[in-house]
Amino acid sequence: MSVEQCVRFLLELDQLKKVIRKTKITGGERNENSAEHSWQIALMALALEPYAEEPVVIDRVVRMLLLHDVGEIDAGDVIVYAKVDAAQRSAEELSGVKRVVGTLPQEQAAPLIELWKEFEAAQTPEARFAHAMDRAAPVLLHLSNGGHGWREYGITYERVVSRIRGEIEQGCPALWLYVEARLKEAQQQKWFGDEI
Amino acid sequence: MSVEQCVRFLLELDQLKKVIRKTKITGGERNENSAEHSWQIALMALALEPYAEEPVVIDRVVRMLLLHDVGEIDAGDVIVYAKVDAAQRSAEELSGVKRVVGTLPQEQAAPLIELWKEFEAAQTPEARFAHAMDRAAPVLLHLSNGGHGWREYGITYERVVSRIRGEIEQGCPALWLYVEARLKEAQQQKWFGDEI
Repeated sequence: MSVEQCVRFLLELDQLKKVIRKTKITGGERNENSAEHSWQIALMALALEPYAEEPVVIDRVVRMLLLHDVGEIDAGDVIVYAKVDAAQRSAEELSGVKRVVGTLPQEQAAPLIELWKEFEAAQTPEARFAHAMDRAAPVLLHLSNGGHGWREYGITYERVVSRIRGEIEQGCPALWLYVEARLKEAQQQKWFGDEI
Repeated sequence: MSVEQCVRFLLELDQLKKVIRKTKITGGERNENSAEHSWQIALMALALEPYAEEPVVIDRVVRMLLLHDVGEIDAGDVIVYAKVDAAQRSAEELSGVKRVVGTLPQEQAAPLIELWKEFEAAQTPEARFAHAMDRAAPVLLHLSNGGHGWREYGITYERVVSRIRGEIEQGCPALWLYVEARLKEAQQQKWFGDEI
């Protein structure tokens, strides 16, 4: 029965509420999880659509962002500054996406898995814009919390910029200009860590 | 500067992560918040689209669900079984939506506020389907957690059914048949409270 498959999907998705990210929510009282993060950047994309580097079909971006972290249910969250094998990491996430989305009937699962792959490949305007949201949101939360996380994990200004600039600038150039200006202010306030 | 307005919107949205609902996540370790709930039912809607009572423009449903609880940032969450003044409650939520979404430029804010009003009025196929998701998800989580919340709050089987049946059945009849069957099983297992 296919409604039952949808309910199994819902309950599998629930596990993403338990995947804890390194980013604190505003005010700093706890770390955010990947489910609420996905919600937040989907709405962020709706707001920033006029600033996409190329015109995007925004509802495809929203779907991508709702799905983009589902693979973490099996693969876990890894901070963006970690030195991991990107290909292996991507394969682990794809495996997770296939398992979770695969609780749905094949004709529904297949396009969602394709959409996740499109996000991951970051070659289309929608995927690039989605990546810009995903990269910028934690930085904006860090900035709202006095740079928490950067000092704690010894992350330098240069490392932040080199890791996030490309994706934000390619997907949403105006957002990068804003983020860069705020990062420079943060640098002056010594919110970054020292290279270990 | 409008990118700055979008960033303010992002940071305002963050407050919804702090609005705690009465529903436990699967496993029962904590209550869910309204941000992650919104994410979950947006994906639930994508999955259940084939079972909508009338054909829906699913991306409008997704947007509605992403936005539907934003008014709780100011108005707080109220359990669906609470006896509240519905008109006053709706006015408080609308006021919250207008304030939060109103951080965006007017031309972006206006259609989002209209979409929220459409959801609230529950008169269109999209809004009715969205309401079905919103009503069914906590019940499905309660069922996955052995009925937690019903006993605790003294909520009877009849009260659950009378409160949720209409909205789920009108928006997604096949989902109601599934939920009803599960609720009857739960009743046999004495998962419901007694009327106080």
